[in-house]
Order: sequence, then structure tokens, then C-alpha cells
Amino acid sequence: MTAFTTIRHEVQDGILTLYLDRPDQLNAFTVQMADELEQTFVEVNHDDSVHAIIVTGEGRAFCAGMDLSSDGNVFGLDESQTPTLADMQDLDDPRLARIRDTGGRVTLAINACRKPVIAAINGAAVGIGATMTLAMDARLMSSKARFGLVFGRLGIVPEACSTWFLPRLVGMPAALDLVYRADILDAEAAREVGLAQAVHAPDDLLAEARSLADAWTAGRSAVSVALMRQMLYRNAATEHPVEAHRVDSLAMFYTSIGDGHEGVAAFLDKRDPAFTAGASQMPPFYAEWTGRSDIPS
Amino acid sequence: MTAFTTIRHEVQDGILTLYLDRPDQLNAFTVQMADELEQTFVEVNHDDSVHAIIVTGEGRAFCAGMDLSSDGNVFGLDESQTPTLADMQDLDDPRLARIRDTGGRVTLAINACRKPVIAAINGAAVGIGATMTLAMDARLMSSKARFGLVFGRLGIVPEACSTWFLPRLVGMPAALDLVYRADILDAEAAREVGLAQAVHAPDDLLAEARSLADAWTAGRSAVSVALMRQMLYRNAATEHPVEAHRVDSLAMFYTSIGDGHEGVAAFLDKRDPAFTAGASQMPPFYAEWTGRSDIPS
Amino acid sequence: MTAFTTIRHEVQDGILTLYLDRPDQLNAFTVQMADELEQTFVEVNHDDSVHAIIVTGEGRAFCAGMDLSSDGNVFGLDESQTPTLADMQDLDDPRLARIRDTGGRVTLAINACRKPVIAAINGAAVGIGATMTLAMDARLMSSKARFGLVFGRLGIVPEACSTWFLPRLVGMPAALDLVYRADILDAEAAREVGLAQAVHAPDDLLAEARSLADAWTAGRSAVSVALMRQMLYRNAATEHPVEAHRVDSLAMFYTSIGDGHEGVAAFLDKRDPAFTAGASQMPPFYAEWTGRSDIPS
Repeated sequence: MTAFTTIRHEVQDGILTLYLDRPDQLNAFTVQMADELEQTFVEVNHDDSVHAIIVTGEGRAFCAGMDLSSDGNVFGLDESQTPTLADMQDLDDPRLARIRDTGGRVTLAINACRKPVIAAINGAAVGIGATMTLAMDARLMSSKARFGLVFGRLGIVPEACSTWFLPRLVGMPAALDLVYRADILDAEAAREVGLAQAVHAPDDLLAEARSLADAWTAGRSAVSVALMRQMLYRNAATEHPVEAHRVDSLAMFYTSIGDGHEGVAAFLDKRDPAFTAGASQMPPFYAEWTGRSDIPS
Repeated sequence: MTAFTTIRHEVQDGILTLYLDRPDQLNAFTVQMADELEQTFVEVNHDDSVHAIIVTGEGRAFCAGMDLSSDGNVFGLDESQTPTLADMQDLDDPRLARIRDTGGRVTLAINACRKPVIAAINGAAVGIGATMTLAMDARLMSSKARFGLVFGRLGIVPEACSTWFLPRLVGMPAALDLVYRADILDAEAAREVGLAQAVHAPDDLLAEARSLADAWTAGRSAVSVALMRQMLYRNAATEHPVEAHRVDSLAMFYTSIGDGHEGVAAFLDKRDPAFTAGASQMPPFYAEWTGRSDIPS
Repeated sequence: MTAFTTIRHEVQDGILTLYLDRPDQLNAFTVQMADELEQTFVEVNHDDSVHAIIVTGEGRAFCAGMDLSSDGNVFGLDESQTPTLADMQDLDDPRLARIRDTGGRVTLAINACRKPVIAAINGAAVGIGATMTLAMDARLMSSKARFGLVFGRLGIVPEACSTWFLPRLVGMPAALDLVYRADILDAEAAREVGLAQAVHAPDDLLAEARSLADAWTAGRSAVSVALMRQMLYRNAATEHPVEAHRVDSLAMFYTSIGDGHEGVAAFLDKRDPAFTAGASQMPPFYAEWTGRSDIPS
């Protein structure tokens, strides 16, 4: 995989551990980091040696939020622009480059990922450091983790598609309360409200995340895992279950003549299956179903 | 009601108990069973003597999943076909007969049902045996029940519109974890994660299910119950509450000049209401609202 | 704000406390009350002195439901009409005046509100008295509160867009159970199922509601709060997170060149921010995003 300057990759036993790697800045988020994260989550879809991704922070923080160290207009916005919602329909329009939310570029790439993504939140996760994890499939926290959807205190708004993900994770009343209060929660409070799936001792966090990644992907068909992930996020958001039925039928058809054929044979033979399909080669309907000109995948 | 070979009907006090009835095969699911279940859930909409449906298994299992006893191509698929998502728009196309997910045909009929549906899970519910219950309105489990969304272990995918229903039942993080892990849960674990609404002693299960069916439907207006069921599943899935408002207005209008007129009169007279409307005759807007050429109802 | 006959306004420290004020009728809901509530929730959007709204009941009840004291056709319906779903597309059509659900007019105005809305449920909340609170951002209950979605017992249906809101608050299985059972719950039971966010001693209820309103809005940017509220309700209901991304980008852009500029500066200076934007003047994309001819706002 491409080597980067703000993040660092480590691959072991099919698990990519991705370190946010600006420890002296508490891994504060920059446009460069957004670019590198987005590129990573696209590239990993085409790398069949990786089955799951863990995102964690180098040093004592996970990600302390947007890097505000530049003076003045920290968002780098061109204030002479007056973008409209109509303008936002074509996200590839180069005039939107400094208007599109950078955190959203990352979470859209995470959402389009064909592999499970686990947040191993080792320390402070604030602002985009918190919202980027909402698009991941589980949030494991160190007992030293802190989690803050602090946007309201700065007069801005939660971004990175977090208002799409958050109510799916904790329900609407808790989502409203978290966003309005804009407090920083400790790990145990985050677990109680449903933000964290588990809290672990700091020294155990990465091992626990790897263990979860294994439980989710070891010995599985990568195509089956990729389809299951996309089916949960996409089918559940449609207006009627018949939309899921269309996708279910195709996903079952193509897996059944693929790795599912081996899976059923192995089950009947009472042996472990030997799956061969890689997620870089998805069934023919996958691009038709998930492909959008406005989302990298 | 029509007599069938893979399922068995029993009607008592307005409650249809529907037994999956292939006990020697642990009630394994077949295309024949799908046809019979689908037909039952359509027919029951037009039978005003039935107010609620309980689904349970004959013998020691609820349903052990798809019947894999035939050799080779267990799904009966024509592998020369290359169906696309565009093809799936017209679900009545006869060329889709062996591509459409059979479990989805059943859960779409359950979803379109005008009566509450309760799963009384007496034993193993695995694969389609598990997913078919997600479209039901409650899952009561015997302490001997087992529940397994095991698709990932076979290299296939969860079907029967389960990725539409599951996050509505347990939230997205638990849905992802259950589908990725693909484990078989015991009844208590299923209750803790929100899959089971209650766990009962095996000998009490059916009586508890009947008691719940009574609490939901005894003495009620069948039209009111049918509308409430469809309003919850359909209105909640729309993009804006104004879509619910359109339906609410009509549902309130037509029930108010129907059973609601008696209901209010009885309330003011402090007597029990005597409702007369049958769900076989829904208000004029019902077909306009719910009717789809691609779903039996 | 306009003075009314069925409700009463009190403004203190930026919090509007709105009393349902027909105590001798247990604050029973009338068309007049619907009109006054709808008008209040529209007017408050343009009153920058109000930052949050608390709704409570005068006397011992919150709201005992629709006023059924008139004889005969209590809903005031013209039974010669046969409205269709197609008719309901144009909600401004004057012929729908007596068909449109009055409760829904209120909850749509609550949903379109630019300020947090808190229900302080001091006593019985039944029928529309219960459903109107589902569109509010939190339900605090006195230990004397009662909460009843009793529509099923009257042969009618839950209204006020409650089938859109309820599953978002308690999940689908609990929503179905509550609506089917149509029981009246005490405060503790309401809290356990997720309907109430907290239960307080009767004498503490209003102070606790004010404390929550403060925690949510004191010292905040009114534009930021208004956007966060609408983003949670609207973005989460779209089919794909990219729809949230379009809105996030604009909301972040316009707050960043507004109150967010001060918010970041104050954060870097380690001082309290001095926000100036009022929710009566929302950013240019707001009307484009939220404006609908069929919803007052």
C-alpha cells in the first residue's frame, strides 16, 4: 500500500492496522490526513491480502480533532463563495474542493469499504476524531479514551455524515442529547450510551481489536463479508424491504455459485471450507448496486 | 384455510397457530414450505376469523435452515443466468423464479400481513429459520431455543430481507456483530441483544405466545390493528414525517367513521366497545397506499 | 408572542415554557389548541430571544387526549368525503381542512422548529397528549406521569406522525408492543422502555427541564443548535450518508464563516465565545434544504 506521512500502515495476519500518526499534534486531522485516509480505504478494497481494518492512534491520543494550528481562516474556506444545495449534487465539481467536508470524504470511503473496520480508540477522540469512528463497525475503547462530539461548543456542526450514523448507533434521544450537550465522555460513559461496544485496559486494546477482527473475518469468504457489510448499511436505509429482497436475491445467487458452493459442500462434509473469492472481484451486480460517481470505492 | 404438506394450521379463539411441520427434518425449509407460508400469509388477510398468527415448530426444532439434503446445486439455480439489479425491478418476471430469494418471498408476505405475527421459537432457528422471524412482531423463545444467523460461515449472505429488519430490532452495531460473527446464540444471549423479547420455559412457550396475541388483539378493531401494523413498518421508513401525516390523516378519517365511532361512544358510555370491521375490508386508501404489483397481500 | 386561550407562554432566561392551559378539562386537546401550538412553534423560529422550549401541563394533567366532550361526530369530519392518498399530496388544499390530522399539524411544526423542545410531562399524557411529545427532543416525566398510546382501544390509530417517531425512540419491537397493547404506562415503565429519558419528583420536574434546556443551549450559537437539530432528524432518514455529506458541507461552511469563526478563535484563546447569530436568520441553503410548501416553519 502507498506510504503516507500522516498515517502509518501495518499488516499482520490479514489485518491492516492503520495508525493516525501525528503523535506530537495528538494526531490532529488535516486535509493531508483526509486524503491519505480516503485513499487507503479505496486501495484496501483492491488488496485481497487484507480482510479487516483497525484504526488507532499513535501515542496517547486517538485524534484530537481538526488541526486548528494555522492562523485565521482555519477551515481554508473561500468566503466569497455562496454554495447552494443544488451545487452539492455534483460533488466532483472542482469548485467544491474547499467546500466539501473533509471528514465526510473519509467516512464515505469507510462506508464504501468492503472489509469490516474497527476503531481502537486509545485516547482522546474529539471532533472529527470522534465522528470518523461512527462510520466504523465497532468502537473499542481503552479505559483512557475520551469521546467528544464538541461541535456545538465551537458554534459549528457535527460533520463526517455523523448525523446519519449516530442515531443508528444510539437511537435518536441519545443522539440529540450527545450533540446538544457537546460534552467529552469518558470510556465508561461512552459504553453506557452505546457509543463504545467494549472498554478494555489500555495494554489490551489492540489485542482485543485484533481478536474481534479475527472473529469477524478469519476463515470467511471475503466476498460474503463485503456483501454483508454493504447490505446492512444500504438495505436497512431503504423505504421498503422489497428493495432488500432485490439485492438479497442477487447476493445469494452469486455467492451460491461462488464461495457458497464450497461453503455448503464443506458443511455437508463436516470440514472447514476453503474459500477462494477475493473482495477485489465482486459479483457483476455490485458496481450496479453500490457504484456512485460521487463516492470513491 | 388451504391444507398443506410442510406446514400445519390450528385455529383457536381467533389465533392461527402455524406449525412448521417437517419434524424429522428439523423443519428444514424447502421451496414447497416457502410457497405454503407465502400463501398462508396472503390468505389470512382475507379470513376475518383470524386476529393474530403464531409461528412455531413441530418437534424439537423451530427450523434448522434451508434443506440441504439434495446433492450438488442445493439452491436449484440456473448458473447460466447473469441477473442484474435492473432485472430485479420486475419481480413477476417468470425468468426470476429460480433467482428470487425464497425466504424473502415469505418475509415480504409476513410484512404485508394485516394481523400481528408472533414467533414462538421452540428450538433451533438457524439460517432462514432465524431470518424469517425477524419480520415477525415479537420473538418469544423457549429456554431451549438456539438462534443463528450463520450465513457468513457458509460463504453466503443473510437473506429474507433480514438486513432490512435486523438493525430495526437491535441497532446497527449489534446487527453488524451478529452477522459478522455468524454464531449460534442461546435464548438468553438472544434476549440480551434484543433478538428475543422474552424467554420462557419450554412447556409455557405456546401459552405465553397466545397470551401475548390476546393482549395485542382481543376485543380490538381488526382494521385498527392492521393499520397500526402497516403504519409502524411503513411510516417509520419514510424520509420525512409529513409522509406519515398523509397516511395518519386518512387512517384516522376512515377509522373514525368506522370502528372508531363505536370506540369513542363506548369510551364515553364507559362500556366495552363492540367492533365490527374485518381486516378483509380495508379502507379505500389502503390498496392505494400498500399495493404493489411485486408483493402479495 | 401572541396571547392565546388554550395555552399560556412564560419566557425566562431564554427558555419558553409553554403550558397546555385547560386544567379543568385536563388540558384536553382541541382544534383551537392545535392552531395555537402550531402558531407558537412557527413564531418561535423568528424570536431570537428564545433558545429552547419546554412544554408542560397546567394543573394535574399533561394532556388527557382529544377533547371528546362534543356529542356525536367528535372528530368534526364530513363523512361524505372519500379522501385518497393522492388528495393528500397537496396539504394546503382547503378541502382537507377537516381531514388533516390536527395532531400532525402540531408535530410537523415541532419537527420544523429551530430550537430544542423538551416535554415536561407532569401528569397524564394520553392519546395526542402522548404522541405530541414523541416529536420533542426529550421526555422528562414526573413520578406521577402516565403515558398512554391508547388508540387501539378506541378502534382508531396512533397519529401526529407518531409511527414515524416512535420506532426512532424505542426501536421497532417495543414500538409494536406499545401500540398493540395500548396500555397506560406509569413513569417508571415509560423510562424502562425508553419513552422517558428521566423520571423526577413532581416538584423538581420543571427545574430539571430548565436545567436540561440550559445544558443544551446556554452560551451556544443559535444557528449551530438549529442546524444540529434539523441535521439529526433529516440526515438520518436519508437512504445514503452522501445526502448528509451535502448538508454537512454547507452547514460547516456557513457556520465556519459565521459563529464558528468566533468559536474557534475563543477556543484558541481559551476564553468563552460570544456568539451573535440568531436562528431567525439561517444560512442561505437552509430554506432550500428544509423548506416545504406543506409544512409551516
